Amino acid sequence: MTRIDFKSVESILSAAHADKRTTLLEYEVYRILQAVGISAPNSILISDIDEMRSRLDQIQTEKRVIKVASTQFLHKTDIGGIQFAPRCQHACEAACQKVWSAVKKAGADPKSVQLMISEFIPYSAKFGRELLVSFRVDPSFGPIVNFGLGGVQTEFFGKNLKPGRSLALRSTRNLSRDAIHDMIRQTAIYDILVGAARGQKKVLVNIEELIDLLQKLSRLAEHFSPLNPDTRFSFSEFEVNPLAISDHGRLIALDGLARFYDEKADLTPRPVHKIKQLLEPRSALVVGASGKGMNPGRIILRNLISGRGVPKEKIYILRPQKGADNEEIDGCRCISDLKELPDPVDMAVVTVPASPRTVDLIRKMIESEKIASITLITSGFGETAVGKKLNEELEEVIQKGRLQENKGAVVNGPNCLGIVSLPGKYNTFFIPKYKLPPARGPISNVASISQSGAYLVAQTSNIGHFLSPRYAISFGNQIDLTVSDFLEYLIQDHDTHVFCIYIEGLKPFDGRRFLEQATRAKNLGKKVVVYKNGRTEAGAKAAASHTASIAGDFEVLRQLFAQAGVLLANDLDEFEDMTKTFSALASKRFYGNRLGIITNAGFEATTASDSIGSLRLASFSEKTVAALQEKLPQGIIDFRNPVDTSPIADTNAFLTTVEAMLEDPEVDCAVVSAVPITGALNTLPAGERHREDIERETSFPQRLIRAIKNSDKPVVVAIDSGHLYDPCARKIEAAGIPTFRRIDRAVKALALYLDSFS
Amino acid sequence: MTRIDFKSVESILSAAHADKRTTLLEYEVYRILQAVGISAPNSILISDIDEMRSRLDQIQTEKRVIKVASTQFLHKTDIGGIQFAPRCQHACEAACQKVWSAVKKAGADPKSVQLMISEFIPYSAKFGRELLVSFRVDPSFGPIVNFGLGGVQTEFFGKNLKPGRSLALRSTRNLSRDAIHDMIRQTAIYDILVGAARGQKKVLVNIEELIDLLQKLSRLAEHFSPLNPDTRFSFSEFEVNPLAISDHGRLIALDGLARFYDEKADLTPRPVHKIKQLLEPRSALVVGASGKGMNPGRIILRNLISGRGVPKEKIYILRPQKGADNEEIDGCRCISDLKELPDPVDMAVVTVPASPRTVDLIRKMIESEKIASITLITSGFGETAVGKKLNEELEEVIQKGRLQENKGAVVNGPNCLGIVSLPGKYNTFFIPKYKLPPARGPISNVASISQSGAYLVAQTSNIGHFLSPRYAISFGNQIDLTVSDFLEYLIQDHDTHVFCIYIEGLKPFDGRRFLEQATRAKNLGKKVVVYKNGRTEAGAKAAASHTASIAGDFEVLRQLFAQAGVLLANDLDEFEDMTKTFSALASKRFYGNRLGIITNAGFEATTASDSIGSLRLASFSEKTVAALQEKLPQGIIDFRNPVDTSPIADTNAFLTTVEAMLEDPEVDCAVVSAVPITGALNTLPAGERHREDIERETSFPQRLIRAIKNSDKPVVVAIDSGHLYDPCARKIEAAGIPTFRRIDRAVKALALYLDSFS
Repeated sequence: MTRIDFKSVESILSAAHADKRTTLLEYEVYRILQAVGISAPNSILISDIDEMRSRLDQIQTEKRVIKVASTQFLHKTDIGGIQFAPRCQHACEAACQKVWSAVKKAGADPKSVQLMISEFIPYSAKFGRELLVSFRVDPSFGPIVNFGLGGVQTEFFGKNLKPGRSLALRSTRNLSRDAIHDMIRQTAIYDILVGAARGQKKVLVNIEELIDLLQKLSRLAEHFSPLNPDTRFSFSEFEVNPLAISDHGRLIALDGLARFYDEKADLTPRPVHKIKQLLEPRSALVVGASGKGMNPGRIILRNLISGRGVPKEKIYILRPQKGADNEEIDGCRCISDLKELPDPVDMAVVTVPASPRTVDLIRKMIESEKIASITLITSGFGETAVGKKLNEELEEVIQKGRLQENKGAVVNGPNCLGIVSLPGKYNTFFIPKYKLPPARGPISNVASISQSGAYLVAQTSNIGHFLSPRYAISFGNQIDLTVSDFLEYLIQDHDTHVFCIYIEGLKPFDGRRFLEQATRAKNLGKKVVVYKNGRTEAGAKAAASHTASIAGDFEVLRQLFAQAGVLLANDLDEFEDMTKTFSALASKRFYGNRLGIITNAGFEATTASDSIGSLRLASFSEKTVAALQEKLPQGIIDFRNPVDTSPIADTNAFLTTVEAMLEDPEVDCAVVSAVPITGALNTLPAGERHREDIERETSFPQRLIRAIKNSDKPVVVAIDSGHLYDPCARKIEAAGIPTFRRIDRAVKALALYLDSFS
Repeated sequence: MTRIDFKSVESILSAAHADKRTTLLEYEVYRILQAVGISAPNSILISDIDEMRSRLDQIQTEKRVIKVASTQFLHKTDIGGIQFAPRCQHACEAACQKVWSAVKKAGADPKSVQLMISEFIPYSAKFGRELLVSFRVDPSFGPIVNFGLGGVQTEFFGKNLKPGRSLALRSTRNLSRDAIHDMIRQTAIYDILVGAARGQKKVLVNIEELIDLLQKLSRLAEHFSPLNPDTRFSFSEFEVNPLAISDHGRLIALDGLARFYDEKADLTPRPVHKIKQLLEPRSALVVGASGKGMNPGRIILRNLISGRGVPKEKIYILRPQKGADNEEIDGCRCISDLKELPDPVDMAVVTVPASPRTVDLIRKMIESEKIASITLITSGFGETAVGKKLNEELEEVIQKGRLQENKGAVVNGPNCLGIVSLPGKYNTFFIPKYKLPPARGPISNVASISQSGAYLVAQTSNIGHFLSPRYAISFGNQIDLTVSDFLEYLIQDHDTHVFCIYIEGLKPFDGRRFLEQATRAKNLGKKVVVYKNGRTEAGAKAAASHTASIAGDFEVLRQLFAQAGVLLANDLDEFEDMTKTFSALASKRFYGNRLGIITNAGFEATTASDSIGSLRLASFSEKTVAALQEKLPQGIIDFRNPVDTSPIADTNAFLTTVEAMLEDPEVDCAVVSAVPITGALNTLPAGERHREDIERETSFPQRLIRAIKNSDKPVVVAIDSGHLYDPCARKIEAAGIPTFRRIDRAVKALALYLDSFS
């Protein structure tokens, strides 16, 4: 790879900084581009006519461009600050005077304003000859590089093209040439650049050169990034628009803007290994348990005791106000001061309200070096003016702990519901059991990590009867531990395969870490599924640069998550559909995307075909068709995919078909669906007015469960019908088979799962 | 409006037809355009150089265009069939010879091929100067006119722009200037045409002129349409691409193609008024009821008897094979021949298999003039070769009936599940009641009209416990009565407000009638909600014209339905969500789109805000906020929209807030949502381990129902939680309030409902 002359860039930034500027002149942007090896028009900066005369022969094109060189004027064209002149000194003089007059008219002193004289670069105004390349620092994701359609119609195409087709963006972290190629290919303009659009034969540009150019920009972004402690300055934004394709296929910058600052991000890492003590504590301290009634602290205490993850004699209750010598609550020892703790404690749970006293308590905990981790259930940090001050103080306390040799304690929360850890055998949720029965069933391969406690509660209520997450973590305001910390820690857990993550906001630069961890998870074959809340506010944010106005925060997140293999759910239903599908199918094998569909209703066959997305309809092998024709009575089922067995097919005919399809080597995955209302299928629990009974081995759900369990192919099931058939659907679901009440949702969930392998 | 010279067009078509062609030459298209008042380059057609010489002074532009004029060559440019020449006879001669050589090289006899010499029209190649205008005959919807981006990049933009933004299309039926303006405004190019895009100040074209032009094309399409019996010829397709915007802002056609034929559609109408006898029969004939066991015919007989819509003594059973004198089944008289019917009968239900005998029976029924309507449950017409033949014969029998004075009988089906008519008090579904309990609750304002019987069954199972459609009609293969016939008939039913229609395919030109009836329904304030199955196959269909390749069948349907105010559901869940929402909210008042949101969970507040679509968040009036601050304890609820009451708010605090919000004049509509798992809300049925009881008047659901019923504003409810809370959700639902288990689905359904008023 070419060495980039970062020194020159540094000196341009230093000079501008000395000039008390945070914005660069176009001339400086051109010099930076040239320093990194990107073409820009040769230019000179002049202060007066004499200087122009003496240096003009440096600019030798047919025409010359004269532009005002000042950060005072945002829209140079509007004030008349851009002029063209033929190659003739007099004409150039006249043009310079014209610009200076315009400057005067605009209220500035022409004497203090320099002009830039540049080469004039001829290029066609036809569609596709103007590109945009840029980078900027995203508050969550750090430096991202952008590529897309440029020119005056950048906004027009941003508004009208399909999402991601006008502007592609990527994190610059470890950005490979292949990834850059993918990024270019993602845009609509790609076909035109490579001459693949209809009615166009000419290749407009050498894609390798374009990749080079974007790679250079990415390296510039990484070098002068707030995350790089080795440089003084950071670019916040750097945009070339248009990057023109000249008539000779040369890529050349024809305008540029850049902003920079001289701050660096604080990236002190959390001691992530201490999350082990948070998730699997062997000793605990509860702060806020009432001795009299059932308050949240007391419920948590009881949960800790009954979970048996922490032995009773290792659970302590802190009651500083009470004086607690020799007292016990629920058989656990009360202490009035941390000093009374006989040994260090893995986890403290704090439920007392936000107050200066609570901050002080946490300070003491950290300073004592006796507490490895703290879950701060407490809300009230941050919502009001008082809360904000408390929050700042608490942040300071935690940061101070980082300077200790033990790095202090890790803190989860505040404003969280705590944690359910099945491996740790404990639960800090404090919802009465009659309103939220604990999740049942074997421990699953899912870690559910949610910024919202209420979402975690609703999720448990919705799917807890068949899916028990190994870990359900409510992480709240992320005052210390972030979502990425939990992801980083849990990726190493051998038994966790699926991360279901609900995010409201990412801490500064934590998005970048999230991408890093998600990529690591993907490389290990683990799945990260995310629901992101608060997607539209971002759009409202006023944004100065083209790229920010086209790709709002959510679009940035969408593209970067896709880059890192994170699966982003479109809505709450899809999030839950993905959670259960990804969890259940992790034990199956990935063969490919040839889908078999069986249903007993024609409308489902069509709806399923409409919903297959990237999947392909399998063609059954002749052997399978022949076997079925032999096994089943003639003419009742037509063995074409999708198979519509019709409502006349009974349990045996239907299941024989399912079994044959799952055995067919031409079929990689399947959707099995039945409208269970037909009298031909045994789909009801035993009742008075009929002879069906889903408890029988020969019933529809029992045979279906056996058929699907016998296959290592990914299969999802749909049972479209009302409450009468809930027992049937739940029985299938409880067997670990993803079960839906609509065939289109079933197919989409399966397609999303299989897409996650590509 | 300008008179259009249709006579000239007719004579051009006649001449081409005499020439045994179905495709017009570009020269002829130009002449047709000029006849209807649309600019095209002046052109001459020449057969040899002498003719050229004698006529060349008719073409007086700076340059001239010479093109091969033959329908043999599809891609004129590719064979060298287009040349340009300066205004000079010699140059023109040379160009003509060049084209003739190219023709020869392409394997044709130059002597038999004419050339067209045209004016050269200068225009800029910049983006937005090339448009596409066209019309074509859609098999379902008849003539549709198209407008969009033209030029070589038509496909590029078709592929990359958001749906409907590259090409807009409308039915030409009653197409007003306003509707044409809307159509142009729908496209991305509109902003550029009117000079409203960024970085562009110039108006490119006078929109009124463009509207004129599209109106002329629409009239041409309607006049030479297969639906117009007064003309001999019909255009199947007519396309101008590009329609260029010349440098002087003039609209001028620069290429054109047209195809035509000389057939007309058969549009014999069905006697739709006879649907009354089908839906509310006072006498009935059952064909296929077994005297021994419970076959479908016998179940239908029993349903007819128990429904009491038809008196028992007016129900007859036809048993032609048995000889049935004096026999009875379930107390109804059997006959062996239609002659034995004492009086004409409103409805016959036929369940015997498809066979020549069945066709013959229906022929006899029609010829007897004793049967007004027939429901043909029978499948087997059309699926196989034998079935296809039977189907054709049956069609003939029905069409012959139309020639009778009484217009024969109307036939519903075949391959349908029949009808449930609550006003007619009958049900021909033959599903055992233990598998599908009949819909409960008061008769609703919904007509559910479905091509699929299975869908209708699944729908009844899913929503029947709180919503009973007035009519549930399974219309099957539409051998006679079409979906539009049912819509037309039922629109006049005063008590039907919402039409929920499931469509797999539309009969030829029945789409046009559907649009007509849907428009009529909209004008009456009634809502037509459609789920269309089989959306993707269409895309695969190879299509010759630009417009067909950009807008496949589903895109055509999507845009035309939008034009007619039909609400198209994206998936099965949304279809059902719309059904229940539109039905329940019909009794509420439409105030506007200022939405109030209340929830007890922060994640729902954000998710709801993310999902509001075209709705706006209301700002509560000061009065409301003051009243709430007085009524409720300080500090527990922050009265900003969306209101997050937090899980601490009890039923009283939550409902007091709901009531205040619904009374606020600044709020037009509302979403009320609670995660019911909090111990603060009384949301469970009575149980042993707690004191909640949703049967109590003060419980959460009961208070919520009263609050919503007391308001005339549209309100939807969400209860996100598991099965434990089904009773709570169902109680609210049973009170006629649209209830969801996800807040985003609730908000989207409400937004769709309110959008239907615009």
